[in-house]
Amino acid sequence: MSTIFSRILAGEIPCHRVYEDEHVLAFLDVAPLAPGHLLVIPKEAKARLDELSDDAAAAIGRVLPRLCRAVVEETGAEGYNVLQNNGAAAHQAVMHVHFHIVPKLADGRGLGLVWNAATDREADARAASLRRRLEAAPDAD
Amino acid sequence: MSTIFSRILAGEIPCHRVYEDEHVLAFLDVAPLAPGHLLVIPKEAKARLDELSDDAAAAIGRVLPRLCRAVVEETGAEGYNVLQNNGAAAHQAVMHVHFHIVPKLADGRGLGLVWNAATDREADARAASLRRRLEAAPDAD
Repeated sequence: MSTIFSRILAGEIPCHRVYEDEHVLAFLDVAPLAPGHLLVIPKEAKARLDELSDDAAAAIGRVLPRLCRAVVEETGAEGYNVLQNNGAAAHQAVMHVHFHIVPKLADGRGLGLVWNAATDREADARAASLRRRLEAAPDAD
Repeated sequence: MSTIFSRILAGEIPCHRVYEDEHVLAFLDVAPLAPGHLLVIPKEAKARLDELSDDAAAAIGRVLPRLCRAVVEETGAEGYNVLQNNGAAAHQAVMHVHFHIVPKLADGRGLGLVWNAATDREADARAASLRRRLEAAPDAD
């Protein structure tokens, strides 16, 4: 599986790098929703978050707070969204896991959300089923 | 700081719990964008991700892949979005860090995104500034 992000990781394509460690690379999105819009990717080449190892996912989680602080300080944004899309149906364009950090600026630039919530009348059964799946599932490292 | 989520963590308010460990609780959103919409919260009571400890953020990261797998298996969704909002301007309603896992169903239910991207002509300088901020910043554990 080769994507533009694996080519960035291999040094074949340049990026505006802002952070790197053993497991994670963060760089500016080339098509930002607002200036300062960051992408945070694992060095492990997996398309979707459900495929990523627990360790790689933990390494991303660990650096998100400091990356968010840097984006807030840099942009002065009052709010921001962290977004990670999985599958073309959910707006994923590059098939290598990536977290967006998108500042929400006072002029409206940033991520737009459409929020159509509805009650789930089968929530009791659904929660029970999800618990069973999680209790049965091995960790994936 | 008391929020509905700290009251859920304290056991004062019920929830449809699906996963819990030392650092993390996951439960069904009471107003789901689609059935199976999960919330994943740290037990550490912080309003925004930029305030959360590295360890608490890593603990959330570590369990996201398995929680996403459970949601996908449960719902059969082809895609899903992981979203974490910070600040009222960015659609945060409960001031305790929470990650949404929202399945995108074939009938369109799920998270709606509005994606207005534009080139950042000052990306070189912005990346350099962000690098300096990150190099100067201590870890926060």
